[in-house]
Amino acid sequence: MSRVATLVLAGAGLLTSGSMTAPRFTTDNQMIVPEGYREWMFVGANYGMGYSDPSPGQVTAKPGTFHNIYIQREAYKAYARTGKFPDKTMLVMEVVEPATKESINKQGMFQGRYVGIEVAVKDEKRFDGKWAYFKFFDSEGKLVPQAKAFPKEACWDCHNKNGAVDNVFVQFYPVLRAARSH
Amino acid sequence: MSRVATLVLAGAGLLTSGSMTAPRFTTDNQMIVPEGYREWMFVGANYGMGYSDPSPGQVTAKPGTFHNIYIQREAYKAYARTGKFPDKTMLVMEVVEPATKESINKQGMFQGRYVGIEVAVKDEKRFDGKWAYFKFFDSEGKLVPQAKAFPKEACWDCHNKNGAVDNVFVQFYPVLRAARSH
Repeated sequence: MSRVATLVLAGAGLLTSGSMTAPRFTTDNQMIVPEGYREWMFVGANYGMGYSDPSPGQVTAKPGTFHNIYIQREAYKAYARTGKFPDKTMLVMEVVEPATKESINKQGMFQGRYVGIEVAVKDEKRFDGKWAYFKFFDSEGKLVPQAKAFPKEACWDCHNKNGAVDNVFVQFYPVLRAARSH
Repeated sequence: MSRVATLVLAGAGLLTSGSMTAPRFTTDNQMIVPEGYREWMFVGANYGMGYSDPSPGQVTAKPGTFHNIYIQREAYKAYARTGKFPDKTMLVMEVVEPATKESINKQGMFQGRYVGIEVAVKDEKRFDGKWAYFKFFDSEGKLVPQAKAFPKEACWDCHNKNGAVDNVFVQFYPVLRAARSH
């Protein structure tokens, strides 16, 4: 291999490993909404999921929404290789309204309007308990450009107790399960 | 910027643009099952979708399954930039069984067992009509390592008539809609 080719290949490797998008924060510790996450690694979707009992006769959460979950590609690769989520891992959950009976669709649901995202962040130095949780849309579905972490009892406690691996609900994400044979 | 840095950056770009996974075929024109598609670009999911009227009282297709749809990252970027799907584009639809009431889940559905994939392929020289459609699992959900294209009336006709862009159901995939403001 020529010297130029060696340089090029090494360079590509460095660029890749150095490019994991890190979470960004304001000086008062609010998280800034991440961008470009739809180009990250998709790990699973779900519909109408809830952790409390439904009302009698109710099958899905109201209103039932899709969630698409993404993780940085580098964090995915580290997890697939080691079983551990590296520091600065982000899991983005995008909420999407269901749609039906448009075009030729006559049954079931496809993904309609985007509502907004919630994000889990691992930052070992910044957060007591390593992980924190943020929501970037308000009750009207309007984008919130920066957000304070939820109090621990709102998200962290349940993720810590019930997440299969390191606060992450690996058990609900088929791509992560397949990566480590969970 | 130093000469070395310039070389490195140019090399990284070349490597990226040259790496689009191409469809592979046997000598008798069967398609070989693609690999690595879970690391491609995710463009949308759906649940229980069907194009025919449901039976009375039935809301979703039976059995209701999730579909996750992926496209090569390079094909996505070309589409986002130009509105056209390049030759050798593949759209992989992965079928996933729903699961519920495991772990702390009490309502709605997450994605359980993988069933298999169906694939749409654009190959302008190989296929009359540019696109062809393949299924890589049998009626028992067993992997089929290579497959013949479906006859035109089984998939192509409907995709050609109803796909919003070039045989592709862009209207059902939020990431593709968002990329071109559909």
